[in-house]
Amino acid sequence: MQGKKVSESFTTFTQIVMPNDTNSMNNLMGGNLLRWMDIACGICGGKHANRLVVTAAVDNVSFSRPIKIGDVVTINAQVTRVFNTSMEIFVDVYKENYRQREKVKCNEAYYTFVALDDDGRPVECCELIPETDEEKHRYERALRRRELRLILAGRMKPEDAKELKEIFLGEMK
Amino acid sequence: MQGKKVSESFTTFTQIVMPNDTNSMNNLMGGNLLRWMDIACGICGGKHANRLVVTAAVDNVSFSRPIKIGDVVTINAQVTRVFNTSMEIFVDVYKENYRQREKVKCNEAYYTFVALDDDGRPVECCELIPETDEEKHRYERALRRRELRLILAGRMKPEDAKELKEIFLGEMK
Amino acid sequence: MQGKKVSESFTTFTQIVMPNDTNSMNNLMGGNLLRWMDIACGICGGKHANRLVVTAAVDNVSFSRPIKIGDVVTINAQVTRVFNTSMEIFVDVYKENYRQREKVKCNEAYYTFVALDDDGRPVECCELIPETDEEKHRYERALRRRELRLILAGRMKPEDAKELKEIFLGEMK
Amino acid sequence: MQGKKVSESFTTFTQIVMPNDTNSMNNLMGGNLLRWMDIACGICGGKHANRLVVTAAVDNVSFSRPIKIGDVVTINAQVTRVFNTSMEIFVDVYKENYRQREKVKCNEAYYTFVALDDDGRPVECCELIPETDEEKHRYERALRRRELRLILAGRMKPEDAKELKEIFLGEMK
Amino acid sequence: MQGKKVSESFTTFTQIVMPNDTNSMNNLMGGNLLRWMDIACGICGGKHANRLVVTAAVDNVSFSRPIKIGDVVTINAQVTRVFNTSMEIFVDVYKENYRQREKVKCNEAYYTFVALDDDGRPVECCELIPETDEEKHRYERALRRRELRLILAGRMKPEDAKELKEIFLGEMK
Amino acid sequence: MQGKKVSESFTTFTQIVMPNDTNSMNNLMGGNLLRWMDIACGICGGKHANRLVVTAAVDNVSFSRPIKIGDVVTINAQVTRVFNTSMEIFVDVYKENYRQREKVKCNEAYYTFVALDDDGRPVECCELIPETDEEKHRYERALRRRELRLILAGRMKPEDAKELKEIFLGEMK
Repeated sequence: MQGKKVSESFTTFTQIVMPNDTNSMNNLMGGNLLRWMDIACGICGGKHANRLVVTAAVDNVSFSRPIKIGDVVTINAQVTRVFNTSMEIFVDVYKENYRQREKVKCNEAYYTFVALDDDGRPVECCELIPETDEEKHRYERALRRRELRLILAGRMKPEDAKELKEIFLGEMK
Repeated sequence: MQGKKVSESFTTFTQIVMPNDTNSMNNLMGGNLLRWMDIACGICGGKHANRLVVTAAVDNVSFSRPIKIGDVVTINAQVTRVFNTSMEIFVDVYKENYRQREKVKCNEAYYTFVALDDDGRPVECCELIPETDEEKHRYERALRRRELRLILAGRMKPEDAKELKEIFLGEMK
Repeated sequence: MQGKKVSESFTTFTQIVMPNDTNSMNNLMGGNLLRWMDIACGICGGKHANRLVVTAAVDNVSFSRPIKIGDVVTINAQVTRVFNTSMEIFVDVYKENYRQREKVKCNEAYYTFVALDDDGRPVECCELIPETDEEKHRYERALRRRELRLILAGRMKPEDAKELKEIFLGEMK
Repeated sequence: MQGKKVSESFTTFTQIVMPNDTNSMNNLMGGNLLRWMDIACGICGGKHANRLVVTAAVDNVSFSRPIKIGDVVTINAQVTRVFNTSMEIFVDVYKENYRQREKVKCNEAYYTFVALDDDGRPVECCELIPETDEEKHRYERALRRRELRLILAGRMKPEDAKELKEIFLGEMK
Repeated sequence: MQGKKVSESFTTFTQIVMPNDTNSMNNLMGGNLLRWMDIACGICGGKHANRLVVTAAVDNVSFSRPIKIGDVVTINAQVTRVFNTSMEIFVDVYKENYRQREKVKCNEAYYTFVALDDDGRPVECCELIPETDEEKHRYERALRRRELRLILAGRMKPEDAKELKEIFLGEMK
Repeated sequence: MQGKKVSESFTTFTQIVMPNDTNSMNNLMGGNLLRWMDIACGICGGKHANRLVVTAAVDNVSFSRPIKIGDVVTINAQVTRVFNTSMEIFVDVYKENYRQREKVKCNEAYYTFVALDDDGRPVECCELIPETDEEKHRYERALRRRELRLILAGRMKPEDAKELKEIFLGEMK
């Protein structure tokens, strides 16, 4: 099982904001964006693993810019690191409005997915080959994000988080 | 604007997992659960604020137990603390299967919502009155969760996070 | 197969009225409310029977108060009586609007569900134990509602409807 | 405002049963059928009244035959009588399966709709002209169905139901 | 396998334009109409073939009249000719608005469907018996439409299209 | 209003085939694919025109390869030529399956869209600048496709179709 490049599973997912996706201010509801980001990551993770993949975790996500009805939402997803049976996937979200020629960044987040075999058991994923500087940067920082994730899920004690300790949450992203 | 009790906006949201909510293993897709949790929190926050509320952030969420097609999903949401225009809302998720009489906890998470006035500007929410020990516990711990949230969003420096520093992420939940 | 209390299968089902649920006056369409009531009853009946349950009948339902887009609809369902393989389920519907702090009753109805075994054949449900006065009242009146249902479905002759005859439709509810 | 014939607003509404419409036995959920019947009646009532119409009541409906995934459901709706601002609409439901050449009747029901003016107030509908014997029969019997409806909604006392009294529920349909 | 008349599989399919079906001018999106036309043709073709049928081709469709939210869309589908395993189906689309008593033609198109056996392989359909003059006319013209379809799909050379050649696209419809 | 390059509005639209998108053989229904292609083209046309755009026509589309449930569908759309207020948009469709590493072409088609001003009237689009050889080829051939479209819509006589005449449908694509 040889490694795959980040670009081989890079995924672009596009949606138009329809009436039923919005709240009473005609803005996209946060939960719908979380769902679209999850689908984008699932496609990306599936491409990398050549397997069914399922969501294992979502890191902290914040929403600052409202996305309006009719806006085009573009979501890019890329694998950042593989940890045995799980993959960390980075996703960023852009909105675009026909009338103004602008593409505005709205969000970014990290999702974690697990690959499953045909009986639904976690199965090893093939390695990831980061190429660009940005890909390498995300790859290295993945360790500290993973430590924080394990602590927040109660599966690691803060004192065992080596990466995190040194930097105490400095430059988490 | 007098305070409201936690119980006044406590919300129970129920769904059955339908075919279109599932992946090819007939399990609920993570993104759909994130969306349902968001709706439950939105109803709860709306009841507390008597305003339109919108999602501002979701904390780290992990998914460990698969939820099957046909399962009944029950989501409970309660406000845990109010920070001027924003509210932290705690949500836990249970699944239930008709054949076995069991109600199994699947997830929990914290969402943050902001209340908006009629022009879409953030507006102050009324205070929260925690009553039970558990409500008071969540109320107190909300400060450290908020610090972590601000750090992760790049809006606070780790060294300014007083609450977090003392405990270095100990007992985050 | 020992009996179960009414409270053991009591179900609360919540929805927000979304654009696609409404007519051109932005009010919830009656058919959507009937569908939500059916889902709430199905969850409730499934909890009581520990089986797949299917709708067998809906009694007369009237709609008097419009429910607006954005309103929160809360539907409570409880089993009122078990008749061998079928259950009568009472459901009431409330609407709530964020801006006014009010919870207004909109509807009530009786649905009848049948429990099925794994081959899709009707199967006996466990007994119901009414506890409160209201539960006992609904339990007793269930006989006359059942007679009316059978007459309306053409499966009982009016002259055989003992309960109904005495009271000639008095206090049906 | 001259009268309209029954045939002028006669409506045929067709659907295929899709996965998301079904329960875990792959049969159409009762609530979805109630919703489709409501839409068919709404189209029919709208054609008769040339107005927005909204559901006011549904009479007792019973479900006896399961409708399978992939079946074609045909719903016919026709106005049976006009009562000032409200219309009684009769609806019958057929299922059809490609493989066997059969069209099987599954259900029938009466819905009541109210016509609204542009401000949402009930408004008078134009008269109905029944032509065939069956249309005339349904027209005449509409009075006793209306009495039963009013009694069940608590808006008429049983002793005032002249039509019903004579026949004590005989031949309700 | 004896022939069937056109009228035996004639299908009427009705929809109301809901908010989620529309673009930001509140008009039905073209793609949704294409989908509804496809469903109507699929029901029609399934009735004729008594088989599962799948879309093989859609001919050129043009959209000239906007269809508004709340409009009732009526789609009529009829088989026009059978070519061994495939059927050509003609579909026309009408819109209707409650307030004005008018039924306006919006579109027409030809879809081609293929019948499949239980293993998903194309299977012969029973013959079609055109009866009215219009049915016979469509039946005869089906040959030239089929030639054009094959040319456009790159499966026939223009010089082999006998029917088309004589008339060079004259009176294609 | 200066011209725009083809690449400036190039759009990639991705979907996963969900249960409700499929027929009873678990294959994507043709009508759903037509709808997704329409959405992809609408996003692309909107980017080029900086306006609301609506579907004016779809050319002949044929479906040869079944797309299975769970497959990832990628749709690429690009403007090929602008004709005053309308744009021709080319779209091709690929399917991908996680288990086999293959991306298979399924379809291609031409859609025509019209740009509208704020009152819903057709409005001139900015010019298109084709750059690559393939873009220039599609640009040139657009004339003959347009002639065929006008003939099929009954808005041009075959004898006036200069481009078409010379080649009599040769190399239409």
